[in-house]
This record gives sequence, structure tokens and C-alpha cells, in this order.
Amino acid sequence: MKIAIYGYGNLGRGVECAARQNPDAELVGVFTRRAPETVKTLTGVPVYAAADITRYKDEIDVLILCGGSATDLPKMTPVLAKDFNVIDSFDTHANIPAHFAAVDAAAKESGHLALISAGWDPGMFSLNRLYASAKDARQYTVPIPAALDAVRSGSMPELTTREKHLRECYVVAEDGADKAAIEEAIKTMPNYFSDYDTTVTFITAEEMQKNHAELPHGGFVIRTGKTGLNKEHTHTIEYSLKLDSNPEFTSSALIAFARAIDRKAKRGETGCRTVFDVAPADLSPLSGDELRAHML
Amino acid sequence: MKIAIYGYGNLGRGVECAARQNPDAELVGVFTRRAPETVKTLTGVPVYAAADITRYKDEIDVLILCGGSATDLPKMTPVLAKDFNVIDSFDTHANIPAHFAAVDAAAKESGHLALISAGWDPGMFSLNRLYASAKDARQYTVPIPAALDAVRSGSMPELTTREKHLRECYVVAEDGADKAAIEEAIKTMPNYFSDYDTTVTFITAEEMQKNHAELPHGGFVIRTGKTGLNKEHTHTIEYSLKLDSNPEFTSSALIAFARAIDRKAKRGETGCRTVFDVAPADLSPLSGDELRAHML
Repeated sequence: MKIAIYGYGNLGRGVECAARQNPDAELVGVFTRRAPETVKTLTGVPVYAAADITRYKDEIDVLILCGGSATDLPKMTPVLAKDFNVIDSFDTHANIPAHFAAVDAAAKESGHLALISAGWDPGMFSLNRLYASAKDARQYTVPIPAALDAVRSGSMPELTTREKHLRECYVVAEDGADKAAIEEAIKTMPNYFSDYDTTVTFITAEEMQKNHAELPHGGFVIRTGKTGLNKEHTHTIEYSLKLDSNPEFTSSALIAFARAIDRKAKRGETGCRTVFDVAPADLSPLSGDELRAHML
Repeated sequence: MKIAIYGYGNLGRGVECAARQNPDAELVGVFTRRAPETVKTLTGVPVYAAADITRYKDEIDVLILCGGSATDLPKMTPVLAKDFNVIDSFDTHANIPAHFAAVDAAAKESGHLALISAGWDPGMFSLNRLYASAKDARQYTVPIPAALDAVRSGSMPELTTREKHLRECYVVAEDGADKAAIEEAIKTMPNYFSDYDTTVTFITAEEMQKNHAELPHGGFVIRTGKTGLNKEHTHTIEYSLKLDSNPEFTSSALIAFARAIDRKAKRGETGCRTVFDVAPADLSPLSGDELRAHML
């Protein structure tokens, strides 16, 4: 598939690097609103003026939009969906329904296919929330000042796990959940939390989005569920991400979802999609036969 | 959707319990190869003879096959796909391609839809292998005999984490992976392994399947990847399951995938599918609008 990058900041550079790791992706170029001659790409990919992009309509299978969610993407994605199959990483959770509606209308009218909100959250975390119907949690490991001071003093102290770090957990519980049971389950979790002084704070989904969305190093989606005639059995699913580079992880996800959008567009689909609408097989360069033989 | 259970062992009873937790699933009955009057269900659902099942063709949207993978399902799934939309939890990894081909042919010929190999592995673990293109790992926490003896003696010893348990890890590495780096990364993982004497053993995918497939309490799928111009950034995804009851977890997955098969059959799809072919949205009772507003 032939892809192009629209917007060349951290995310655009991440997509440029990620494209090299995907042998089925050919990067046609970078489109920028700056003067193209002032922009130098990491890998020597050509740079074009954003204003000229419609000239390249027939050379691009999927256009990857690397603008910001606050002001760029709400305008950019619907406009570019008139001429291209597009994919973005729009991450303002509260505005997703409105963004979806605007992009869906533009893409259906022009006969193109769009996918919004791919990345880690929304994106991979959303998939795991859906698969498990789970809520969110974020956990921070916080150094204890007295331990830092002791180490800095040069006295080479022998410190226990508990003396070195606190664990702070922020949890969005489901409606009607037993919060005391959740707090107890977290605090007594062996190896993870029981060896630490751990605080558990319950917050709303809105507070999670407002105050904990930018977490640089990842987070968790945890789901516990009960089964059995009298709900006597407990199951725990935990999905965690630890990221060195948020934009580069997002870039890799964008390329995989661009692959899916390219295939679905070639099958005649139009309109707007999210990660929930993509069958996992469409993300992989492997065939159905290969996936069943090696991944199932 | 109207579902029925074919085969009434641990898995069949699990599906019976799981059906009560899914308001959109109506359990029509249990079909057994034993004499129906000798079988008593947990919830009073009626029991019918397996030999009579074709009489109930028009009353069942999806038939959930709860036979064993060794001898039951290879025959049962293709035969029943002639008259029903079916779903099974076939878990003999090496025979999946042959089972898929047999079920696909039968379902296409009769105009029905089938899904094979749903559950936790194959199933949820397969999805996470695909999303991350990752390999498998299993970890056992093994009590140290000297610690058990000390506790049993009644001397009430104070034992450290390291004195109580060993950690044994079995890992299937990707071709060409740096095994020394993987071993070092596992052994030094804080909170998980660094507080234990941990052994790491590399095995083949076949050995994993043969010797570690029956793990009662779950396992891990771990993927580390590198991004950046010179692959200077590392990312770690970890997906783990801890299960009190393997058949009941599998049952809950079967009902969610039955929902997807019911929807896809009503859209006119025929043939055989796996978990890779199901868009996540089709597993949820929520609408696309609800998913985008609350789960994305």
C-alpha cells in the first residue's frame, strides 16, 4: 500500500520510522503546511506543500493524518476524507462521537473510507476495554523522598521495596462496583502491590481523561469478572503497556490500521470506522492460512 | 439470540451459567448423547436427545458445541454445520488448519456460518499474539519445599519473598531473538521476578503446546518491540489471564463469539471463521454509538 504523511511533528516522524519496519508500506512523501524546502525528513522522503495534496490523489492509498486533536484534526480529517482514505489518532474522548459523525458524512459522500482514534488510548486500550468490558486504571510508582535522600547521602543504604517507593493507583470503577473489594484486591495483589504502601483513589472517567491521559510510560486495563452458578469463580485479565515513546508507538498502530483501511476500501467499504470495526486479521500482513497455522 | 448447548460436561455447564449473565442470549435447551431423562441441568433448562436435534433447526440461532477436541469436535462441528450456525472451542493447535477446512466446506455448502477455536488459548491469547505479533510465555510460581516444611512445623517462620517461592518461566522466543537479553529482562523485572530466584527456559512452540497448554491458572502473552530511526525506543505489551475456572472462562468467550456469529449470519455470511475474523464491535451487546461514546 502507498501511504503519505500529512503533518510533520513528533507523530509524523514516528510514522516515517514505522513505515520502514512494514515491508508492505511504501511512503510516498510528507505533506507540510510549512515551506517544504525548510523541512528535512529523517530518512530522505520527499516533502511537499500541503496545499498541493489533491494533485497526488491517485498516488496515495491511505493518508495518515498527524495533526493535533485540539484544533487540527476536527477540521483536517473531514476535509481530507473528501479526496483520500484517511486515518487519524484523534484522542479527545468526549468529542469522538461528533468527530465520527463529521468524518463519516464526508467519507460516505465522497466514497472514501476513514478510521479515527487509532493509537494506544483510544486504540489498543479501547480494544481491551471492549474485549473485557473493563474500566480503566493508572498506576504510578513514586520514589519516597527519604529513600532518595538516603541514597544521595552516599551512605549506600540497604532499602526494602516498601522503603523505596509508594504505589499510587487511580481507578475508574464500573457503576455499582464494590469499591472496598477493588481496593482490597489491589492492595493485597502479590508482587505488584502487597510489598508497597499502596494508595487507591477512585475517580470518574472524566477525571481519568483530564488528569491522567498524558501518562508517558503507559498504563493498565484490568478487568475482574465472576462466573459460575453462584458467581463463585473469579477471573482477572490484565493488559499493560509500557512505552518509551508515545508518538512512535502510536505511529506503529497507525500503520497497522492503515493496512486494514486499505484492504477494506479495496473491498468497497466507505464511511468512518474505529478500531472496534476492524477484524484483527486485517491488521496483519499474514494471510488467513498463515494466521490460523501460526498465531491461533 | 437463541442458543443451544450440544454436549453437557464441564464446558456445557459453564455455557449454561454464562448464558444467564448475557441478557440477549436465550438458552433453548441442552442436547446430550446420554439418555435425556438421566441428565439434570443446573438451572432447569430442558434436556433433549442429541439424535433429535434437527427437529429444532428453526428454534436455534447458534449451536454451541461443547465436545472435546481430541475425538468429538473433528466430527461433530462439520456435521452440525450442515444444519446450524455453530461455534466450538477446538484447541488442538496443530490440527486447526485441517479442522478449519472441513468446517468451512460444510458450512459454505449448507449456507451456514461457523466459528472455531474460541476461548482463552486459542482465543483471547491468539488475539493478543496477533495484535502484538508476539510469542508465548508461561510462568509458574513454585513453593520451596524447605519453606513449606518450616511453616508446617508450626514454628511460624518469617520468610522473605525469595525464601517462599521460585519462579519458573517457559518462553517461546521469536526466530533470531536475543535470548540472553530476554532472560536478563525477565530476571530483573521489578516486583514480578527480581525478588525471586527465577529460572528462564526457552522451548519451542510445539513444546509449549504439548507440555504447558493445560495450565489451570492462566498465563501471559508478552511482546517487546523497538521503534525509532535506530530502534532506540523499547515498548512492552503484557497481556495476562488468571482463571479460577478454565471451562467457565471459555464459556463466557463462546457466548460473546456466538453473538458475533449470529449477527454475521444474519448479514448473509457463510463458511468458517476464527477469532481473527471477528470485528470487536460484533462481540458487544452495545451499539456502535454506545461503544464510541463509552469504550473508545
